[in-house]
Amino acid sequence: MDFSHVTVLGPGLLGGSLLKALSEFSPKPLIHAWAHRPETVARVAQSGCAQLATTDLAAAVAGADLIILATPVGAMPQLAESMREHLRPDALVTDVGSVKAGLSQSIPAALHGAATYIGSHPMAGSEQAGFSASSATLFQGATCIVTPMPAIDPVLVRKLSAFWEMLGMRTQIRTPQAHDELVAEVSHLPHLVASALVAHAAATPENGLSCTGPGWRDTTRVASGSPELWTEILATNRHAVSNAAVAFAARLLEAARYIREGDTERVQAFLTRAKQDRERRLDS
Amino acid sequence: MDFSHVTVLGPGLLGGSLLKALSEFSPKPLIHAWAHRPETVARVAQSGCAQLATTDLAAAVAGADLIILATPVGAMPQLAESMREHLRPDALVTDVGSVKAGLSQSIPAALHGAATYIGSHPMAGSEQAGFSASSATLFQGATCIVTPMPAIDPVLVRKLSAFWEMLGMRTQIRTPQAHDELVAEVSHLPHLVASALVAHAAATPENGLSCTGPGWRDTTRVASGSPELWTEILATNRHAVSNAAVAFAARLLEAARYIREGDTERVQAFLTRAKQDRERRLDS
Repeated sequence: MDFSHVTVLGPGLLGGSLLKALSEFSPKPLIHAWAHRPETVARVAQSGCAQLATTDLAAAVAGADLIILATPVGAMPQLAESMREHLRPDALVTDVGSVKAGLSQSIPAALHGAATYIGSHPMAGSEQAGFSASSATLFQGATCIVTPMPAIDPVLVRKLSAFWEMLGMRTQIRTPQAHDELVAEVSHLPHLVASALVAHAAATPENGLSCTGPGWRDTTRVASGSPELWTEILATNRHAVSNAAVAFAARLLEAARYIREGDTERVQAFLTRAKQDRERRLDS
Repeated sequence: MDFSHVTVLGPGLLGGSLLKALSEFSPKPLIHAWAHRPETVARVAQSGCAQLATTDLAAAVAGADLIILATPVGAMPQLAESMREHLRPDALVTDVGSVKAGLSQSIPAALHGAATYIGSHPMAGSEQAGFSASSATLFQGATCIVTPMPAIDPVLVRKLSAFWEMLGMRTQIRTPQAHDELVAEVSHLPHLVASALVAHAAATPENGLSCTGPGWRDTTRVASGSPELWTEILATNRHAVSNAAVAFAARLLEAARYIREGDTERVQAFLTRAKQDRERRLDS
């Protein structure tokens, strides 16, 4: 791989999975991990997946040619600012945040020219959180969207994409804005919808929660994700998400109208198309 | 168990799973299976989970004290009429259909007093269909709603509930109408929503399908169910389903408004409540 020293900041579900996946590479880069809390540092150290695990940000990033921010999105700009004096001048900084337009402004501003920043969004995860839920195989087969700003050297973009591909991911390149609009539709909206389905079942006068089945369990799985993390994601991408919800509600109500009117032909066409589109996606 | 001879009509996913679960009982009842197609009969016969597998309806039901209709809902009344002359007078007839109000009228009418009918809705299944997808453990831990009409002898209701409980299910008793309203909220609406989420992703100009993640895959899993089967279910329960969709859309748009307005406190409360309600359900 093109990087010889990788530092991961924030060894939670994604950061921890990165550390574990990297530590299985051969040849293996030098791997450093930084965490805010000493307990987390101790857990990472115990797992043996990093050569250095520390709460000392300067020590963690010194000498690294790739630094990956994997903390909650809100903490990233401050972290970038705190580390900028300790970075190698040719270091590449990326992150794993779910919303990119804001970070594409705030992280370069915080770095102040001390290193190059390119956003990444590895679309992997689960409703669980923390280092204990992390896994070396989390990224296998998933998609990573890389979101360079226009002025970025394409060679660096290629290098970063190749890094994610080595972790088993398929990469796409999009602008930060295009990324945010897209994930509003395919990730943030489904999360909001899943939570609303739970709220809906819980609100039935007949206690609908007591007779939900395996379909409901899967449909609502993501609603067990971290409320703090998802509040931040939805707030950061609020215009795209609320627009997506409005468009989706209209689509749903259209299908409901076919059902109410007994237009079984249209209902069946709608369900058939959805099944085909879904399976086309999963086969690809 | 209280039944010594059980006949299953329609060995698809649910009917096949019933046959397989029953054939593991000890002591085992006499198990008959009826299917419309000779190929299906051959597959059931080969699996060894029924003492008799046949396309001959009279032979399949003769002597049975429990007959379970597991065909598509639309075929059930005709089947009930065709078998009524061959039933034991004390036979109990049930079914596994997802919508109950209509069947609670049409099946007794078709039986014409030849046997007692009580509806059942075992809330188990998967997006797959057919005998080949069936499994002896499909019902374990799931809920079965039993939907007797008011005039039915409670002793028979208890006997039928005990049957489903022996298959590992938790049972609830509701009127057919209450059942239909409830499953509109917790099963039919989530199916419609899942299909609409796929349609939504497929309609993005940026090809959203190409960058969906594991959350999307689970949220939309049920959209891979049979379009024919689900068109029938949604059409049969059309008023309750379309009402549920309208109420759900309003709930979703309310959450979207909080997001648009940057009311993170309400958004977080909404997500937190949904997570808690979901986990309360799964723990129970």
